[in-house]
Amino acid sequence: MATIKDVANDAGVAVGTVSKVLNGHHVSEENKRKVEESVARLGYQMNYYARGLKTPYTYTVAVIVPDILTPFFACLVYYIEQELYRYGYRMFLCQSMHEAKKDSYYLQLARQNKVDGILGITFNTTELSQAGDTPVVMIARHLENSVCVTSDNFHGGELAVQELAARESRRLLFIRSGSHLSSETLKRGAGFVAACKERGLAYEVMDSGDDADGFNAEDIYDYLWEHMIDGKLEFDGIYTSTDGLGLTVLEQLRRLHIQVPKEVQLIGHDGLRHLNRGAYLISSIAQPVEDMARAAVESVIHRIRKEPVQEMTVLPVTFVEGGTTRIKE
Amino acid sequence: MATIKDVANDAGVAVGTVSKVLNGHHVSEENKRKVEESVARLGYQMNYYARGLKTPYTYTVAVIVPDILTPFFACLVYYIEQELYRYGYRMFLCQSMHEAKKDSYYLQLARQNKVDGILGITFNTTELSQAGDTPVVMIARHLENSVCVTSDNFHGGELAVQELAARESRRLLFIRSGSHLSSETLKRGAGFVAACKERGLAYEVMDSGDDADGFNAEDIYDYLWEHMIDGKLEFDGIYTSTDGLGLTVLEQLRRLHIQVPKEVQLIGHDGLRHLNRGAYLISSIAQPVEDMARAAVESVIHRIRKEPVQEMTVLPVTFVEGGTTRIKE
Repeated sequence: MATIKDVANDAGVAVGTVSKVLNGHHVSEENKRKVEESVARLGYQMNYYARGLKTPYTYTVAVIVPDILTPFFACLVYYIEQELYRYGYRMFLCQSMHEAKKDSYYLQLARQNKVDGILGITFNTTELSQAGDTPVVMIARHLENSVCVTSDNFHGGELAVQELAARESRRLLFIRSGSHLSSETLKRGAGFVAACKERGLAYEVMDSGDDADGFNAEDIYDYLWEHMIDGKLEFDGIYTSTDGLGLTVLEQLRRLHIQVPKEVQLIGHDGLRHLNRGAYLISSIAQPVEDMARAAVESVIHRIRKEPVQEMTVLPVTFVEGGTTRIKE
Repeated sequence: MATIKDVANDAGVAVGTVSKVLNGHHVSEENKRKVEESVARLGYQMNYYARGLKTPYTYTVAVIVPDILTPFFACLVYYIEQELYRYGYRMFLCQSMHEAKKDSYYLQLARQNKVDGILGITFNTTELSQAGDTPVVMIARHLENSVCVTSDNFHGGELAVQELAARESRRLLFIRSGSHLSSETLKRGAGFVAACKERGLAYEVMDSGDDADGFNAEDIYDYLWEHMIDGKLEFDGIYTSTDGLGLTVLEQLRRLHIQVPKEVQLIGHDGLRHLNRGAYLISSIAQPVEDMARAAVESVIHRIRKEPVQEMTVLPVTFVEGGTTRIKE
């Protein structure tokens, strides 16, 4: 087991400084940080049991995502775990599987002081109250009383229109699928509509409404088929609210023998790569996943340490080419 | 906070039964299991602090994987988390990132009784001693004193040969890449060689040796190019130790204008799907990921409860078609 001396050595400070930090006395911010990180890294524990005290910190953060089978969430968790480890924190991984019951189980842990903070991606609003005093940082979703880290979804929609227009697309279609609960994908559509209006471009929106199941491949095939005149699609540019949806659209376009990007250009949203490391699967509005993970972890650590933290962090998105848009001249 | 009464209600047993279990007295196996699961589910805690005692169980298992950016590991963790939750256990997710230091950090937690068990995928043998008395279950790697759950890698290699031969491939190539530390991929090659010999098929093996970086795309391109005579590849069937490697091979075959599966058939290993849920990316020897996760979690829970457990569980692999093999006549 690590001793107080080990912590002092690791942190490069005097034993007295470690003792001060552990007992909540004042030391410089930098020394406090060094000691806290060494305590976590070495797993140092004061003999709380003998004193009949509870350990004040668990150095554990619960990360709640819908599931990690979805590549975008796997990427986020991949970076979050590394960031947390850098701060000396461990990660409970919870997949809510879109079940409020499971969110609620992990929020209970927070109330029982078994985790110091929660990083969540789109979970039930109503459950959030169960976190008690535990700091909560949300990714890609803004809730009252929680800190939010997101990428710029509205501008993502604008950027898609800008890139399609710069490549000579004139009649645009936006497709969004799934529950309206995830408000961020709605902003993508709002940005798309605003940019089309500003540029005077013709556009349509295909929205699944509040159907959690969203569109399946056949729905999209039928919609596209109905919008063909003399073997040609009415649209020459399509933007989808996610890359997953974009890939389904690409498949249906191929079934209809519509050439991409020659006849119609396609831009998705998220920036998914081949096996998560290779080329982009389609042209896309890429979210800065690594920066989002870093900012979210930084926010939750600041909140745990009761340091000031920005309520809303919006990180920039970028356009990436993945073969479904033409080369800009 | 949950009371002893809540636990009794949840488990459907008398309060006295709960009390007996908590104090280590004898009750039926079934009641013991019910109570333990309810205790975990409800997060019930005896007032250990007041008694100056440590909580005997944390209902936490550390899951150590190289990283979850790799789709195969993300799939495994996806199922493991759900299985652990079913038993009322939480999961620390640790990505070792192929660094022994990080494995070692999580093994320390085990020694400090902060986790009840460890589920590991290919980590440093030398570190394993650090787990102390904590039950360790390995996936796809057999180590002394640990329980192992794996799929049948040797038969995977045999099966690849069998399926290629049944589809008229006669001159086979096996490609394996990366460190020899992961002994399981070596068994795939051994199965391949044994089956080729048994059938009297010509074969070659392209092995990166013990180079952890393995082959890159150019290495494979050059190798294939050197094995072409008059614009035709010497081989008409290729088996790769992983699907990731198989996809790289597929790309190089396309660059060389070799038609797949017409001129050469290709079988990978793992059974990766499009975005983890869709069609198989290439024809492959699929590992039963969900069954492996279930068996591994079951083993670690049995070991935590000091129940008997099988030292080695080998689960069957299956051949899946993914467009890189011809339709069998």
